[in-house]
Amino acid sequence: MNQMTNAPAAAGGSPGREHAPVEFYFDFSSPYGFLAAQKIGAIALRHRRAVDWTPILLGVIFKKTGSQPLTEIPLKGEYAKRDFERSARFHGLPRFRLPSRFPVPTQVPARLITWLKDASPGLVPAATLALYRAYFEDDIDISVPEHALAAAAGAGVDRAEAQAAIESAQVKDALRAAVDRAIARGVFGSPFIIVEGEPFWGLDRLEHVERWLEKGGF
Amino acid sequence: MNQMTNAPAAAGGSPGREHAPVEFYFDFSSPYGFLAAQKIGAIALRHRRAVDWTPILLGVIFKKTGSQPLTEIPLKGEYAKRDFERSARFHGLPRFRLPSRFPVPTQVPARLITWLKDASPGLVPAATLALYRAYFEDDIDISVPEHALAAAAGAGVDRAEAQAAIESAQVKDALRAAVDRAIARGVFGSPFIIVEGEPFWGLDRLEHVERWLEKGGF
Repeated sequence: MNQMTNAPAAAGGSPGREHAPVEFYFDFSSPYGFLAAQKIGAIALRHRRAVDWTPILLGVIFKKTGSQPLTEIPLKGEYAKRDFERSARFHGLPRFRLPSRFPVPTQVPARLITWLKDASPGLVPAATLALYRAYFEDDIDISVPEHALAAAAGAGVDRAEAQAAIESAQVKDALRAAVDRAIARGVFGSPFIIVEGEPFWGLDRLEHVERWLEKGGF
Repeated sequence: MNQMTNAPAAAGGSPGREHAPVEFYFDFSSPYGFLAAQKIGAIALRHRRAVDWTPILLGVIFKKTGSQPLTEIPLKGEYAKRDFERSARFHGLPRFRLPSRFPVPTQVPARLITWLKDASPGLVPAATLALYRAYFEDDIDISVPEHALAAAAGAGVDRAEAQAAIESAQVKDALRAAVDRAIARGVFGSPFIIVEGEPFWGLDRLEHVERWLEKGGF
């Protein structure tokens, strides 16, 4: 990312050359993360930005912030379930369904994408969306390695390589380091978006992100 | 409110006659509540609805939900302060300032409005906004009775009557009962809006509220 930031402005104006990528942090068990993941690519593209997709582990982050999964909080939990589906309809994404097992640990899909960012970055957006859709549209438990690998394979990821990757100590360490870096940048929820240092939390801040990209701040 | 709901449809279509009022719940120490309070009247009016303004006490509600003030949560707190001001600018309300003392207990202004809803309902919107503006624009600590009374008096509320009201056991009980009713209706934050049983939490759900009013659900 620093390389891109420091690169000289490209003549052709291809996405992400003039400016730092839009940093997009998400947990694979986050409904609002899923909905935002389907929007962020188009938003960035409209403003000629690349997206830096970073899976995080809310479980680790919640320990630091003393938070808990939204659906487990009294009163708020019931509301949240209703709001997930209403937000999906509001954003024109009605295929969203709350999975039968929710939330799930997300180390497996997060490791897969952490590895893929290094191994084959061009596949990251499609693989991320394939994993998210398996979980939030087709009710497939992507915390199970078999299921995560199948979803990613559907997006063109090499299954054997991915399997080795999610079991590798190196990738586990890389994910842990990525989560620590995210926390150090102030990330505490999902989705979380950073545009040149400015933090935006939540699906409902995409409008702020869009205006920020358009005007360079407001 | 039930009376209005059950009333026959009025011929003239004046606000709030055909449908139940938009229920608007807010805490006087809630920045997003303040911003939403400046929007909800116009939204309701566009859809020929009245607003039922109900001050609540987040301190009481947070005890039930195990929540704490946003600004006191690690990481989230720093973000929230930034987001308050950015949200104010985004919504064209740049006079917002985080008060020097924040949050404050809100029994005093909440009792005042609870009493006013009964004593002089026509003054409720202006008095609510006057109290909110004193706190979030002019940095006046409205938890102090003198300051709350002065702000309300500026909106046409009788000062002596208001003073007697905020000290009265009956008004204290009425506020307690209103908070209990709000909790029973699922209210857990501020602002909280209910349109014919459909709950909406947060400034960022005003768009959902507007679409809901327009289409009768979505």
